[in-house]
Amino acid sequence: MQQRSEETRTRILDAAVRRFAIAGYNAASVDDICAEAGVSKGAFYHHFPTKQAIFLALMQGWLAMIDMGLDEARKDTVPETLVHMTNLLPGVFAAAEDRLPMFLEFWLQASHDETIWKAIIAPYRHYQENFATLIADGVAEGSLKPVDTQVAAQVIVSLAVGLVLQGVLDPHSTDWEKTARESMQILMSGLEKQ
Amino acid sequence: MQQRSEETRTRILDAAVRRFAIAGYNAASVDDICAEAGVSKGAFYHHFPTKQAIFLALMQGWLAMIDMGLDEARKDTVPETLVHMTNLLPGVFAAAEDRLPMFLEFWLQASHDETIWKAIIAPYRHYQENFATLIADGVAEGSLKPVDTQVAAQVIVSLAVGLVLQGVLDPHSTDWEKTARESMQILMSGLEKQ
Repeated sequence: MQQRSEETRTRILDAAVRRFAIAGYNAASVDDICAEAGVSKGAFYHHFPTKQAIFLALMQGWLAMIDMGLDEARKDTVPETLVHMTNLLPGVFAAAEDRLPMFLEFWLQASHDETIWKAIIAPYRHYQENFATLIADGVAEGSLKPVDTQVAAQVIVSLAVGLVLQGVLDPHSTDWEKTARESMQILMSGLEKQ
Repeated sequence: MQQRSEETRTRILDAAVRRFAIAGYNAASVDDICAEAGVSKGAFYHHFPTKQAIFLALMQGWLAMIDMGLDEARKDTVPETLVHMTNLLPGVFAAAEDRLPMFLEFWLQASHDETIWKAIIAPYRHYQENFATLIADGVAEGSLKPVDTQVAAQVIVSLAVGLVLQGVLDPHSTDWEKTARESMQILMSGLEKQ
C-alpha cells in the first residue's frame, strides 16, 4: 500500500508539471491535474491539501536533486570541487526550462503572499549557507585566500542564478556549460591562494 | 507644441508605471492608464500604438538610465571603473523593485511571443557586448590578464543579474551595495594583472 501511495503521489506531481507547462500555474485546475494523472480528487487531496502544496513539493524535489548533485561533486580540494560543480548546470538548465514559467508566476505572487515569498527565498539562503561553509572549508584547508565567506558565497550564488536565467532565456547564444566552467575558473583565480 | 507633446508622453509613461505596479501589466487597461494620466485615448494612441509599446519604452528608459550611469562611472583604469560601477546598483535595485512584477509578467509571455522575447533578451546581449569591450580595453591597457573577453563579460553580467534579482526578492537579508562592491573586488582579483 505504501508503495502504491508513493506511485500516486509521483503521478500527480508529473501530471502537474505537464499541466503547469501547458496552461500555466494559475490556469491549471486541480480537476485538470486529476484528469491528466488519472486519479480521483479524493486521492489528490489525500496527498496535497492545495495546489500551492504541489508547487512547493515540485520545488523541493528540484532542490533535492541539485543538493544530491552538489554532494556528489565533492573533490579533493575546494577549488576543484567548485569548478567540478559547474558540470551540474546543464541539468539545472534542463529542469529550469520546463519550470521557469511556473516559477515566474510564483514570483509574481511572492510580492503579496508571505508563504510563497518564504518558499522562493529559502533556496537562496540555503545555497548561500552551503557555499559559505564550503568556502570556509577551502580557507581552512589552505587552498583559498582568507576571504569573507559570506561575500564569496554570494558571488557564487549570484553567478549561478544569473547564468541559469540567461541560459534559459537565451539557450542558443553560447555554449552555457563551457561558459559556466570558464566563469568559475575566472572566479577561482581570484579566490585561490597562489 | 513639441514640448507639450513630450510632457504628455512622460505623463502617460508615469501613469503606466503606477497602474502596472498596482494592477499588474495584463490587468491594467489603456482606459485605466488614460484616466490616471488625465489624457484622452486619442492622445494615448498618438504616442503609443499598443500597451506593449509602453512596456518597451519603459524598459528602454530604464536601460538608458543604466547606460548613462555606466558611462559616467569611467575611471582611469578598467579595474577601478568596474569596482566604481557597483555604486550604480542601489539605483538599479530601486528602479527594479517597482518594475519587477511587470518584467516577470513579460518574461512569462516571452516564451510564446517573439517580439517580447527579443525585447527581453536585447539588454543582456547589449551589456554583454559593452562589458566585453571594456574588458578588452583593460587587457589592452595592461591592467587585466589576457582573459577570454566574452567569458569575463558573461561573469560580470551574470553576477549583476543575480545580485539584482536577490536584492529585489530579499532586500533586507544583507547590505547589497557593500555585497556588490566586495563581490566585484573578488572577481577583480581574479582578472587583474598582478
